[in-house]
Amino acid sequence: MVDTTAGGSRRLPEFFWEKNVNAPWVTSRPEIMVLDCTIRDGGLVNNHQFEDNFVKAVYECCIATGTDVMEIGYKNSDKIVSPNGMGAWRYCHEDDVRRIVGENPSSLLLACMVDAGKSDWKNDILPKEKSPIDVIRVAFYSYQLEEAVAMIQDAHDKGYEVSANLMAVTAVAEPELDHVLDTLIKTPTTTVVVVDSFGSLAPEQSAYLTEKYLKFCEPAGKEVGMHAHNNQQLAFANTIEAIRRGATRVDATLAGLGRGAGNCPMELLIGYLKNPKFNHRAVFECLENHVQPLRKQIEWGPYPEFMITGLFNQHPRSAIAAREGEKRDHYASFYDELAATAK
Amino acid sequence: MVDTTAGGSRRLPEFFWEKNVNAPWVTSRPEIMVLDCTIRDGGLVNNHQFEDNFVKAVYECCIATGTDVMEIGYKNSDKIVSPNGMGAWRYCHEDDVRRIVGENPSSLLLACMVDAGKSDWKNDILPKEKSPIDVIRVAFYSYQLEEAVAMIQDAHDKGYEVSANLMAVTAVAEPELDHVLDTLIKTPTTTVVVVDSFGSLAPEQSAYLTEKYLKFCEPAGKEVGMHAHNNQQLAFANTIEAIRRGATRVDATLAGLGRGAGNCPMELLIGYLKNPKFNHRAVFECLENHVQPLRKQIEWGPYPEFMITGLFNQHPRSAIAAREGEKRDHYASFYDELAATAK
Repeated sequence: MVDTTAGGSRRLPEFFWEKNVNAPWVTSRPEIMVLDCTIRDGGLVNNHQFEDNFVKAVYECCIATGTDVMEIGYKNSDKIVSPNGMGAWRYCHEDDVRRIVGENPSSLLLACMVDAGKSDWKNDILPKEKSPIDVIRVAFYSYQLEEAVAMIQDAHDKGYEVSANLMAVTAVAEPELDHVLDTLIKTPTTTVVVVDSFGSLAPEQSAYLTEKYLKFCEPAGKEVGMHAHNNQQLAFANTIEAIRRGATRVDATLAGLGRGAGNCPMELLIGYLKNPKFNHRAVFECLENHVQPLRKQIEWGPYPEFMITGLFNQHPRSAIAAREGEKRDHYASFYDELAATAK
Repeated sequence: MVDTTAGGSRRLPEFFWEKNVNAPWVTSRPEIMVLDCTIRDGGLVNNHQFEDNFVKAVYECCIATGTDVMEIGYKNSDKIVSPNGMGAWRYCHEDDVRRIVGENPSSLLLACMVDAGKSDWKNDILPKEKSPIDVIRVAFYSYQLEEAVAMIQDAHDKGYEVSANLMAVTAVAEPELDHVLDTLIKTPTTTVVVVDSFGSLAPEQSAYLTEKYLKFCEPAGKEVGMHAHNNQQLAFANTIEAIRRGATRVDATLAGLGRGAGNCPMELLIGYLKNPKFNHRAVFECLENHVQPLRKQIEWGPYPEFMITGLFNQHPRSAIAAREGEKRDHYASFYDELAATAK
């Protein structure tokens, strides 16, 4: 069992943790920290153009629910990612963040994602004491490892807790992954996250990857996380599998709001975790009043097109394009298209 | 590895089955038999009022896909279950079945579900040689065990393969379950199915139950199956978990069509199984041309109301009622209602 200071006490009395507990599914697993990335990953559906009242509602829902961390957006540079048609949560300027959370007097931790190649992290990430943000999550592809290491060090030196998120792990060759993990454990990141960007993992693969990440991370005193996508309706299941193998940082979004097929739904995750600190009703209230109404404007969920890109271990962009155009719901021809080119 | 005659050869060369295979997720698992219950379970959404062309399309899709068994409906008695507003597939009169499949010259096996308390099985199940049906699935609650045993014997004596489906296992006390399993293994049923009627299981529980069923069934030469519901978006995951633990008979439906939150989606299941005999395109074609258009008339899927009944281990009927009335999408008050009365 890990024990970090970030989430307060995360231990139960030892007798809860006997190895052969009869019914592990009714333990409350207090070592698990839950991160809400509704605004960050959900923003990939609508170019981060959420109204302030929606972002505020998610923030208040996280506090009421007992969520540990809320990721409020990307800290991309508007000199690299054009602000043309893009909302505030792609950049997370400090004044935008403060407009929602003030100095964030709650115990909810605030996170931003900063991706390699798209961020002016040296300038845009302020020293921690000047920002209400607590956690910087560094997202990168394996070929961006060197920049990622510099970003992790920079954010750590500025006073933030740091998480390292290697994207699209299902497209990374094993020696490359070994190299990435071996490098990350030498950095001050507290967490390394298994990221199934393409929603392609089966639970066995989540188990394999979680155990592999832990083999590197545990001796280095780092935690392992899981960020799953729902292409094959397995985001929740892969998150459960990671938890069963020892992952302690898990990502979810309200109603699974997120790019393409979406993410692990928060309402399901906290139902599984059985931690009495979670307020289920707060989530259902936010779903009812704020998230469900969004479905009139934007679409997400495990539609067959996303299942097909997941099956072929492909980025969901072709599925997103198919669902936005005349090819929507033409599953057979979309399957033909991918079968001809993908494998 | 089981080896029954029903599905032809279901073995791979032994070297495929070494215990510590590196990547079990790419083995084709030929021992798994897949049952399509789109018409039977899906019929619970629309009182089994499917048009003939839909039932025929599902039948042809099963053949084209390489599905092992198709369950075409219930064989209920119209003297017990009123035919008022009820379609043909609730009763599966032999002439209705023949209208779709003729003598079923294909290698697809045909199944009917017969439930205790609702069927005149002595009279309505004909000797096998007079029917195109191959498999009788006996569905029962634990208090109906004695009738179920008589039904199993009767169907076996008439020449059918028989499956025993104890419903709502998450509401059955352990000594009762032991008694049911201990009794079933003495009957001529070939299969005993783990049935999560309320969509309430977590994968750990599916693992526990599958292993428990196997402990009884394996020494008796019987197979274990899984029938999962999608209330917590875990129907597919629970099916995978059962397969990993040794279940060899699994149920699925096209697009998950089934009561309430629906079932394990066939398109996902065959994607997972990696058996080259399956034709994925045939499924996507049927989804596109027949199943997706149905969504204009009827609703199924893992809506939050079903997640809530699943969380409380309740029958989905209150969620179905909520989604059909003015309370639809009022998740918080629906949660309040169940929280006040359910546990």
